[in-house]
Amino acid sequence: MPFDDQLRADTSALYTDLYQLTMLQAYWREGMDEPAVFDLFVRRLRDRNYLLACGLEQGLEFLESLSFSDEALGYLAEQDRFEDAFLDWLADFEFTGDVYAVPEGTPVFPDEPILEVVAPIGEAQLVETFLLNQITFQTMIASKASRVVEAARVGDVDRLVADFGMRRMHGPDAAMKGARAAYIAGVDATSNVAAGQAYDIPITGTMAHSYIEAHDSEMGAFRAFSDLYPETILLVDTYDTLGGVRKAIDLMDETGEEVQIRGIRLDSGDLAELAHESRRLLDEAGLTDIQIIASGGLDEYKIQDLLDRNAPIDGFGVGTKMGTSADQPALDSAYKLCGYAGEPRMKLSAEKSNLPGRKQVVRQYDGEVAVRDVIATEAEQISGAPLLERVMAGGERTESGTARPLTALREHASARLSELPAQLRALDPGTSGYEVVLSDAMEARLDTTREALQRTMTAETP
Amino acid sequence: MPFDDQLRADTSALYTDLYQLTMLQAYWREGMDEPAVFDLFVRRLRDRNYLLACGLEQGLEFLESLSFSDEALGYLAEQDRFEDAFLDWLADFEFTGDVYAVPEGTPVFPDEPILEVVAPIGEAQLVETFLLNQITFQTMIASKASRVVEAARVGDVDRLVADFGMRRMHGPDAAMKGARAAYIAGVDATSNVAAGQAYDIPITGTMAHSYIEAHDSEMGAFRAFSDLYPETILLVDTYDTLGGVRKAIDLMDETGEEVQIRGIRLDSGDLAELAHESRRLLDEAGLTDIQIIASGGLDEYKIQDLLDRNAPIDGFGVGTKMGTSADQPALDSAYKLCGYAGEPRMKLSAEKSNLPGRKQVVRQYDGEVAVRDVIATEAEQISGAPLLERVMAGGERTESGTARPLTALREHASARLSELPAQLRALDPGTSGYEVVLSDAMEARLDTTREALQRTMTAETP
Repeated sequence: MPFDDQLRADTSALYTDLYQLTMLQAYWREGMDEPAVFDLFVRRLRDRNYLLACGLEQGLEFLESLSFSDEALGYLAEQDRFEDAFLDWLADFEFTGDVYAVPEGTPVFPDEPILEVVAPIGEAQLVETFLLNQITFQTMIASKASRVVEAARVGDVDRLVADFGMRRMHGPDAAMKGARAAYIAGVDATSNVAAGQAYDIPITGTMAHSYIEAHDSEMGAFRAFSDLYPETILLVDTYDTLGGVRKAIDLMDETGEEVQIRGIRLDSGDLAELAHESRRLLDEAGLTDIQIIASGGLDEYKIQDLLDRNAPIDGFGVGTKMGTSADQPALDSAYKLCGYAGEPRMKLSAEKSNLPGRKQVVRQYDGEVAVRDVIATEAEQISGAPLLERVMAGGERTESGTARPLTALREHASARLSELPAQLRALDPGTSGYEVVLSDAMEARLDTTREALQRTMTAETP
Repeated sequence: MPFDDQLRADTSALYTDLYQLTMLQAYWREGMDEPAVFDLFVRRLRDRNYLLACGLEQGLEFLESLSFSDEALGYLAEQDRFEDAFLDWLADFEFTGDVYAVPEGTPVFPDEPILEVVAPIGEAQLVETFLLNQITFQTMIASKASRVVEAARVGDVDRLVADFGMRRMHGPDAAMKGARAAYIAGVDATSNVAAGQAYDIPITGTMAHSYIEAHDSEMGAFRAFSDLYPETILLVDTYDTLGGVRKAIDLMDETGEEVQIRGIRLDSGDLAELAHESRRLLDEAGLTDIQIIASGGLDEYKIQDLLDRNAPIDGFGVGTKMGTSADQPALDSAYKLCGYAGEPRMKLSAEKSNLPGRKQVVRQYDGEVAVRDVIATEAEQISGAPLLERVMAGGERTESGTARPLTALREHASARLSELPAQLRALDPGTSGYEVVLSDAMEARLDTTREALQRTMTAETP
């Protein structure tokens, strides 16, 4: 299949696990079409103090456009599992449910719904896989990127952070959505040109070692590149880093005012030491405006270490470790049935439990600092700021669900993150002092649901 | 942008890092259009004894269809970095190079080229990002999946391994290409319906806890589901695992020959102990044909542990840890300039070096066991099986580059993997006894190139 056709393949409704379709047929056949409530949440964090919710927009786009093409129905018909009458019914299938969600760029915590789906049970079930896939991934990247941005912001200096991760992210689509998520989280730019085009994210880039190596000399390469791009950033570590810095300085001498490169990039070696030495050489030459950009295996811990060593670095290119969330390449996300036909539902398991019924999460403040989240039942009046909004009603977006410009989501994230207690925004995990509690009504519902479930099970046990 | 349009976005040529395009313009302006050789290889392994090459097909599809749409050119024109004449030149751009590659499903080792591109330098440079992105990801997943399959094959029993990873893989495209890579590596089926459709991979699935919970009783859910799918696999751990097994047995009693479920699935708890207990209950009821499928946080190590404990498990559903290659969510891949205008090139760095010039990798055997790879210069006569084939010539696929059915790639992988020494296919790293050596001619080229480079650098140093 040619490359473009693959991306065009009309398989959106088939972006799901097979069991969602077999369960959908079972619900259809059993006439089970009462509304179900499903919560999408993360069970626990590892090496993260908070999550930054992300991926809702792609989730809503999926729900809006969800339908079974003739090609998809033809494929299902070949599977020997689906009745003709069911496939006929699928031909007119659309998502008709309500969706409640926290806005993208909102910090959230374990057990808090990032999204709730209220829809006829088969519909709500079918969309599990795609919603989990997209929201888990983007939330994971936004959460990681937020840590990288925090690490780079020590001393309130705004050091540029750029996403350089495309080459080792998990396919081109991951590189697109990952660039989006990182930008919402506060990353300033991406090297991914397609993401720049699709999402209007500033694009950035310097030059590669191969460009230097293809030229007869490093100086020749610097000269040619800066002649074309007078405000470029020169990569100085191809052969000998400080030798490269000296050549950049010679080039400035040579070209005078015609060329004024913006910076140099260090991509290997002891970046802190090399940054100090490079800064000294540049400053001695009067080139105090030339910035130092660092890259090469960076993540939030390495950035913190560099800045702890006072490395005079003005910007970071962060690749693989942010783009794959390398220390935690998946979140422990879940999409759980919390209610059916007006009755709260839950799973009885210490490890994998869930909170029954529809919910609201209310964020409470001490002055301007967020100090506590209350997970409440849906209609409770609790003081504070409710996080869940109705973003879709009857399968159509509400005003709250209207796509927002990425810059607005980025500002929202920045404002919401700045409300978190400082210790939460530090890299180290530990007692964050942030409380997530259940409201009394939610506690009561939990107890009632658990007891009812235990009674049913006892009745059923032979 | 609606969901489908996003997948259809004609941005294939923009799936690249910005610096590839700025370097391309620089090469164009400098008139540098001599052929370059770039190698795509992995620098080192961590917790892997071999890699399974994968992703070539998508790389070739990309190269074949690479072009700049009007929309892409319009976007670039807005960037204030590109000259009109260059954008005009891009409008007719196509990839005209040669590509050499090892067939998908071939085990490879560090420093060995998985792919070599020989093309005018700007072209070869532009495609770096996409080729690295696709081949790194698919090779990583195939390599991980191969270990999972090996772990499940203890005692030469063919236990089914299914990919259940879609929900936490990095976006839908990662779930598609990941399912493909895992299937090539020997995984038997996927839960991902779209991947089943696109790649003709067998699809599989059972039922979810939510289906059980939505019914008034577990037995009611089992009854309804197995009535519709008489050969289904029942998920027994929603409330109490052995209780669930007993209900499945009661159901078989109740329905007689009408329903003969294929198996039960365990998704939580001590899977080895529960499998032993479940097997005992099933066997006592005369249901020796009913299989036991295990899932829930599995990877190759957990599978090995389960089978070390003789757990009577007939199949594994493996999700997140395989689908994200969780213990190593990126490979240390590189795409390095090895030659330009007929001259070998390399980077002088202990950490990040590369082998100069074009190459061939020759696999040598002791009987039927592969024992040694020789990385040779391109035209050497060395006894053994050469791994690199010319898959593209002048931008067109050769016969070797023709797309092969996935089943053929899967058989190729199986055959090539079976040639590896047993200790390489074990999970533990360690002295594998597998040699990767340079031919004398390659050693000599390496020395000559290094010396020439050092002379140039000395000459250039002030």
